[in-house]
Amino acid sequence: MPNPNLAERITNDLLEGNIQNIKDVLAEVHPSEIAGILATFPPEDYQRILEALDAETASEVILELDPEHREEILGELDAEKIAEIVEEMESDDAADLLGELPEQTATTVLSKMDPEGLRDVAPLLKYPDDSAGGIMQTELVKVSDNFTIRDAINWIRLIADEIPDFHQIFVTDDGDRLLGDISLQKLILATPGSKVIDVMEPLEVTVTPYMDQEEVAKIFQKFDVLSAPVVDEEGVLLGRITADDILDVITEEASEDIMQMAGLGDTLHPIFTPTQTRIRLRTPWLLLTLVGELFIAFIIVYAFEPTLKKVAVLAAFMPAIMATGGNVGLQTTTIVIRSIGMGTINIKQILRIIFLEVRVGVTLGVICGVLAAVIGALISYNEPEVFKIVLAVFIAMVSATMATSFIGVAAPLILHRLDFDPAAASGPFLTMFNDIFGSVFYLFIAMLIFN
Amino acid sequence: MPNPNLAERITNDLLEGNIQNIKDVLAEVHPSEIAGILATFPPEDYQRILEALDAETASEVILELDPEHREEILGELDAEKIAEIVEEMESDDAADLLGELPEQTATTVLSKMDPEGLRDVAPLLKYPDDSAGGIMQTELVKVSDNFTIRDAINWIRLIADEIPDFHQIFVTDDGDRLLGDISLQKLILATPGSKVIDVMEPLEVTVTPYMDQEEVAKIFQKFDVLSAPVVDEEGVLLGRITADDILDVITEEASEDIMQMAGLGDTLHPIFTPTQTRIRLRTPWLLLTLVGELFIAFIIVYAFEPTLKKVAVLAAFMPAIMATGGNVGLQTTTIVIRSIGMGTINIKQILRIIFLEVRVGVTLGVICGVLAAVIGALISYNEPEVFKIVLAVFIAMVSATMATSFIGVAAPLILHRLDFDPAAASGPFLTMFNDIFGSVFYLFIAMLIFN
Repeated sequence: MPNPNLAERITNDLLEGNIQNIKDVLAEVHPSEIAGILATFPPEDYQRILEALDAETASEVILELDPEHREEILGELDAEKIAEIVEEMESDDAADLLGELPEQTATTVLSKMDPEGLRDVAPLLKYPDDSAGGIMQTELVKVSDNFTIRDAINWIRLIADEIPDFHQIFVTDDGDRLLGDISLQKLILATPGSKVIDVMEPLEVTVTPYMDQEEVAKIFQKFDVLSAPVVDEEGVLLGRITADDILDVITEEASEDIMQMAGLGDTLHPIFTPTQTRIRLRTPWLLLTLVGELFIAFIIVYAFEPTLKKVAVLAAFMPAIMATGGNVGLQTTTIVIRSIGMGTINIKQILRIIFLEVRVGVTLGVICGVLAAVIGALISYNEPEVFKIVLAVFIAMVSATMATSFIGVAAPLILHRLDFDPAAASGPFLTMFNDIFGSVFYLFIAMLIFN
Repeated sequence: MPNPNLAERITNDLLEGNIQNIKDVLAEVHPSEIAGILATFPPEDYQRILEALDAETASEVILELDPEHREEILGELDAEKIAEIVEEMESDDAADLLGELPEQTATTVLSKMDPEGLRDVAPLLKYPDDSAGGIMQTELVKVSDNFTIRDAINWIRLIADEIPDFHQIFVTDDGDRLLGDISLQKLILATPGSKVIDVMEPLEVTVTPYMDQEEVAKIFQKFDVLSAPVVDEEGVLLGRITADDILDVITEEASEDIMQMAGLGDTLHPIFTPTQTRIRLRTPWLLLTLVGELFIAFIIVYAFEPTLKKVAVLAAFMPAIMATGGNVGLQTTTIVIRSIGMGTINIKQILRIIFLEVRVGVTLGVICGVLAAVIGALISYNEPEVFKIVLAVFIAMVSATMATSFIGVAAPLILHRLDFDPAAASGPFLTMFNDIFGSVFYLFIAMLIFN
């Protein structure tokens, strides 16, 4: 919740060029709140406000900004200043930020960084953004397996300033291979003279650097851990991931699912995403659907014009059939996509899942079909062959819900099986498929009945 | 990943009544994996497999099960056995489980619990499931403000067995009011003789017990914390929430949004939710939409039959207009609902958000309208008044995208402002609204043009 008075004070200070005042005021405010305030200012003021902050606060504010705002601001800063800010960040955040920069700029920034910061960040840059390696941080506490508990505590005293937050101490051998961990809790309880190797516990959970972040999130949820080490195939300790990183992953992945289901290429923001970008990202799906729907129009014009001329009221029920089929399909596909996303279905039960969903879909279709037939008969009671009309409506309604249930359940499962994103199965694709049943198939049935 | 061989071995052991064997085999397996295996067995075997586990493992297995499976299993167990299992759980999980039981059963279970377990769980039962109080646990480490660091460490030694995982020590005064916290990291670094009150830090984040869990999740994400204390209005420490609980909250809330957008009353599982429940939960929305769509049919029959008889091909373009309007509306509402869910929009900018979205919607409508007019003209080139047809299509297409953009953005914002769930604004409601523009309004325009 940005504080409006605060924003006003800063505006006044900016007008009067009183940067010191801004410094004093913002010293009391949490970085995420500063980010919120910043977002209400016009772009030309960003840099001046950021200049009023020390590098550490500035780095935290930048992390809290929307990606669009961040891009805008970073575009204004020179490489030297960015390097200064990046050095203040934890390695995972620093790597993410560098990944967001244009390649040229990222290279320049890396060249300006001090060796220590570079050492932490460089190993992370080789992993994809959405992999365990991309979200891990390299700052961690590890001790050699021949340490005593006393050695370990002394070592922690030495390095505690550099490592902001840790909850476990990793024990590694000479080859840096991870052997186990000691929770801080256990460390406090242990006798100072005992060997770490006798106190440590085997690791319940480890992840590998190329593991997909969604997979990592599922492991965190399954084992209810707050932190997990990342090790390579030789067992060498590379970094650690903490639950707060996973919170972002889960939010991101859920958004991706929702966005994809709505035929949106990416997470769009209703204010910050530029209009052009929004149109560019939304148009492809729309045009794809439209072309499919115009193909439907083509079939109707050439195959069913005589039927429609003869029984014009048939057209009146097209929206009802399309909407019912569409809703049933959307419900089905949502249930399946979400179950896949949450990892709660066993893909081996694919046939059973399809059978169960289609059975539910047909039942819903019969319920809706009966209602539509009854009300349809009332609506068109003075048509000469009302029974034929409602028969066509009923058959089309049941067929449509059966077909859309089948596609709604089968398409995401098959995509998932083939390692594609199951969410891509819904939205425009499902709409088009469904509308064929709600219009072309319905008119085809009507034509058969009336001839 | 349930191991098929394991399931097979257990099946054989069950057949031979060899419970001891099952005990030995499952001793090596993680509870979440046992839950996965259990789900592949028929209900009549559940109890016998659970009996092979000690109460602690059984309690962990039960927590890992799907809610449907859990309900089924708990229905089979007597109150004594459930009490035994509940006592093994952390207080937040225990409270959740008790909340899932029928009230009668829950009361009986509570009466069978030992006083200590009861003391931990009872305070939690008064908070709603989806509040901070509902997800917190009461097990925590607190020390009095007149303790020294040495006292604190001794105290931790005493109680460490009871508190499974902790990362911070809370400091409270005589009235149990929370003053600050000490991270384990700081505790290790501090001089044993110093007072905890001098070492402790002020709390960055606290939450109140009636705060909505979604709100709590946003705070965790904003401040990147792994744990936060829950305090009442007098500042008395009630419990703590850890990031692993928040992982579940975020998953749950994202699912709720998605489910609601698809017109599903609840999170349904493609296998475990009984068919009857699924039909019951899916039917209301479907029937609501259907009745709306049949009202549309009624209008078409009574107002536009002559127009349709005269120009039957008009019907051919109804699906295209409905689908385009529907997709634009779905995209818009998804963007807005997700932004509200993630807390990235400022509700004060409501007019600006609406303006921006409608502008994008109209632009998309013009793009699609032009394409539809051109292809529509090609499709119906041998109709006598093709220009009038494509004009009606174009006008209806632009009007539909404008209207659905407007409703798609305004409805969730208004619902949110009135403290309703914004996700309720999408799905069936949007479909119906959209279909009026794609059929009734389109035919109305056509009627005007052709008369």
